[in-house]
Amino acid sequence: MQQRPATGQSELVFLPLGGAGEIGMNLNCYGYGPPDERVWIVVDCGVLFGRETSTPGVDLMMPDIRFLENVRQDLLGIVLTHGHEDHIGAVAHLWPKLRCPVYATPFTVELVRHKLEEAGLQDRVKLKPVPLGGKITLGPFSIEYISITHSIPEPNCLAIRTPAGTVVHTGDWKLDPDPLLGAITNDSALRQLGDEGVLALVCDSTNVLVSGESGSEAEVRRSLIRLIASLKGRVAVTAFASNVARLESIAEAARLANREVALVGRAMRHMVDAAREVGYLRDFPKTVDEEIAARLPSDNVLFLCTGSQGERRAALWRIASGDHPRVSLDDGDSVIFSSRIIPGNELAIFELQNRLAAKGVSVLTERDHFVHVSGHPARDELAAMYAWVKPRISIPVHGELRHLQEHARFARELQVPRAIVATNGQMLRLAPGDPEIIDETPSGRLHVDGRMLVVEEAGFARSRRALSFAGFVGITLVLDRRRRLAADPVFYMEGIPDVVGESLRSAVARALRDKADDLEEHVRIAARRAAADVWGKKPVVRVQLVEI
Amino acid sequence: MQQRPATGQSELVFLPLGGAGEIGMNLNCYGYGPPDERVWIVVDCGVLFGRETSTPGVDLMMPDIRFLENVRQDLLGIVLTHGHEDHIGAVAHLWPKLRCPVYATPFTVELVRHKLEEAGLQDRVKLKPVPLGGKITLGPFSIEYISITHSIPEPNCLAIRTPAGTVVHTGDWKLDPDPLLGAITNDSALRQLGDEGVLALVCDSTNVLVSGESGSEAEVRRSLIRLIASLKGRVAVTAFASNVARLESIAEAARLANREVALVGRAMRHMVDAAREVGYLRDFPKTVDEEIAARLPSDNVLFLCTGSQGERRAALWRIASGDHPRVSLDDGDSVIFSSRIIPGNELAIFELQNRLAAKGVSVLTERDHFVHVSGHPARDELAAMYAWVKPRISIPVHGELRHLQEHARFARELQVPRAIVATNGQMLRLAPGDPEIIDETPSGRLHVDGRMLVVEEAGFARSRRALSFAGFVGITLVLDRRRRLAADPVFYMEGIPDVVGESLRSAVARALRDKADDLEEHVRIAARRAAADVWGKKPVVRVQLVEI
Repeated sequence: MQQRPATGQSELVFLPLGGAGEIGMNLNCYGYGPPDERVWIVVDCGVLFGRETSTPGVDLMMPDIRFLENVRQDLLGIVLTHGHEDHIGAVAHLWPKLRCPVYATPFTVELVRHKLEEAGLQDRVKLKPVPLGGKITLGPFSIEYISITHSIPEPNCLAIRTPAGTVVHTGDWKLDPDPLLGAITNDSALRQLGDEGVLALVCDSTNVLVSGESGSEAEVRRSLIRLIASLKGRVAVTAFASNVARLESIAEAARLANREVALVGRAMRHMVDAAREVGYLRDFPKTVDEEIAARLPSDNVLFLCTGSQGERRAALWRIASGDHPRVSLDDGDSVIFSSRIIPGNELAIFELQNRLAAKGVSVLTERDHFVHVSGHPARDELAAMYAWVKPRISIPVHGELRHLQEHARFARELQVPRAIVATNGQMLRLAPGDPEIIDETPSGRLHVDGRMLVVEEAGFARSRRALSFAGFVGITLVLDRRRRLAADPVFYMEGIPDVVGESLRSAVARALRDKADDLEEHVRIAARRAAADVWGKKPVVRVQLVEI
Repeated sequence: MQQRPATGQSELVFLPLGGAGEIGMNLNCYGYGPPDERVWIVVDCGVLFGRETSTPGVDLMMPDIRFLENVRQDLLGIVLTHGHEDHIGAVAHLWPKLRCPVYATPFTVELVRHKLEEAGLQDRVKLKPVPLGGKITLGPFSIEYISITHSIPEPNCLAIRTPAGTVVHTGDWKLDPDPLLGAITNDSALRQLGDEGVLALVCDSTNVLVSGESGSEAEVRRSLIRLIASLKGRVAVTAFASNVARLESIAEAARLANREVALVGRAMRHMVDAAREVGYLRDFPKTVDEEIAARLPSDNVLFLCTGSQGERRAALWRIASGDHPRVSLDDGDSVIFSSRIIPGNELAIFELQNRLAAKGVSVLTERDHFVHVSGHPARDELAAMYAWVKPRISIPVHGELRHLQEHARFARELQVPRAIVATNGQMLRLAPGDPEIIDETPSGRLHVDGRMLVVEEAGFARSRRALSFAGFVGITLVLDRRRRLAADPVFYMEGIPDVVGESLRSAVARALRDKADDLEEHVRIAARRAAADVWGKKPVVRVQLVEI
């Protein structure tokens, strides 16, 4: 770590607290001012879904914002680029620790408002709508919303002008010449910024490993129309609910194939309502209720379902498992996955598809049909962005380390003078002078574990994961006042084969005959050793003494 | 389930006990004779690797062979098609329950012999080599080995002739016009079988969802030669060790690029030795030791490593983590993954690649370079096989349900008169008469849990998985003879947030003041309820009483 010069000069700094090192839970901070008097803005405030492997029992994760809590008095606002969960999902959880105004365009406001209502925060949070293409000024930060394209209504790129220079923060984006819903990318604004001079481009890295272009929603619509027209029997389509243009494409394909649309799953209905609320989906056909749809002839219905990632509580899993109260699929019916597999969800999705196959349902996916395009820029699109914006510094975000590193390499190939990988917690001075990492701030993750918000470091998920490998053994020893056993030891054994348990009991009985200064530790070691001898694995062993 | 006619007529039956419903642990049985006097052969005897999600703490899984143990006296032999773990990995584990001769071609014999030696079974098992293209007769089964191509030396298709007709059992295969090592597919033998008349084709379903053809090892060799010639710095390549032709391609590419080859990882060295032992790899260059390789100039070394699936104990993980005692990689070096991602390993592989990226190492994969082809038949190859063999019945195996169902659908499209999906444990009568599922036998999985072999139904892995979601609470209550508390309750809490633990202790203290007939259950319910109230999750809670 470099020492920073002890001047009172104003600096512009960038600090990612989430998303730089993982895909998800994006939270980026910009600070401006002399080191001890900086003011801050936060761009996006998202969540990441927990993994059964690494974080069992954790539903959601979000950035540890200890650093921001400490500068809360100097925090001017949270500025949201768009409404995906990995950009807004943490607002309702973290706002009580930050208590600053929140800015977003109307559709995103609608989604955040709903979350705040669920959390009972709607009257406390100043949620400020910004019109598309609008500008806001927060202290030294003058922020312009620039329309771009992505896989949700109202994606925005931010031009953040400061006395030290302009940063272009892309948010999530792609270049879709025909996004079907909303504006196309305002490339003239981006070119103009490039001509004015851009200090740094903070840019989406998700698909830097993908060559070519991401493709257009309009092409997917044409393909879905052809595909759905060709199908007999009931058709179910699952897609990311937030891809409202896609929902419209599917509804349009249904209409052209003489199929009524039923929305199945809460998120699907919620997203359609939110889009209508702010004026989108004006031509979306009137949907029918699940009950009515269930009684329509097979060739006249299309179920638009949640659950493309194999989520067990979502509509499609319940349908595939025969557990849905109203919707069922059978031999000869079809399910289209108009979605991609989010890495880590493969086995759950395949299990879902196996359940559908067991019913004789045909499963159509992006692997065999053109039913999905990504919402993130492939390499040709990244190259176009760099050509427009011409930044002096490239800062890759929104990616794992392998994406960030490759993005930096790619930016250098594109002749960007500096490309710097700053991961979560690394504070990067952008100006004045050469860009440089000047500090490491506390960073990490908060877990939504059940209803509680706990720091990852507390290790509850890690402890549970340890239990899943070799189980648990608890041993209570009841001693009288002379420290002699007053009863047989009490054993708790979970996830341990019976034979191992027996051997462990015998070993403990033997150990209790020894004289040991530290009886608990002596018994604990004997138990672990016995398990290792028979089983080859050592469970978590706890021993407690009770004196009576 | 159908009733079978109570005749004494001889029948030919097929019974999969593994692999029909999952990719892995292949074990297929063929029986011939009147229902009460059948004799049996087993084709392949493989393992499946455990999953941290569904089976935490389980290294390997294999078929539950209770059915075969019961007919052991009538079991004529285990016939192995090729040497992949999912076809031979269970032999050493299960042979003691079956004790019959084992047949295989020389390379597979070499691999099995090694496993038997590790298990101390080498003197007990009759391991019988069959020459390539050879024939064996086991009772009514006359079995011909037919050379085919796959991703390991000596893959074989079996023509199993019986008095009731001929079954062609493909094993794992593809059509590679230039497999580099070993024979090409003996399609004239397959055509001839088709002309003679084939009752059933039992066929690999792995890639039925993939259109086109799988591609040739020779093309991969040419591409690797070009790619490796273009790289500067140290190069490491990871590949499946059993793909001996691929290892040879990599060594050849190294030689042409003036790089010495070092084999890193036990499986890599073992596989090269085994191949040489039976006469393959005659032109494989002399490899150098890791120590020597470590001192060579960067541009003159290539490390051929185990660990393409992100396995934590394998060479590449240790190198990427800086934990390997002799091999290290740095900024400017490259790693080629000449392999595919086995579903379920995504996150581990990405974590491995992130660790390499953190060191500044370039990661090249099949996603961005042509460095791998599959060993399984895509649809065009399946179509060719059906055209040659012209079976009356298609029986898809080696796949999850979604693969088996699609394979059956595809076979019907290809005009195969009957295509039948029989999953693990379903006994299918092939002849005489119409094919029909006539019985459900016990089936399931055995877990290698530590050093023990336990039935999945015993639920140890399932119990441990439950612990990983909401942790464990144990409560010991020490009572005197009048059933009054003689000490404070003893608590075990694992993976439970502290606040939840405190609330749970208070709830137990309150519950202990109640009069309850069943004190254990009363306390247990109070504890679970308290956790649910604060936390929203219910841990596994056990309560035990000790009377003194």
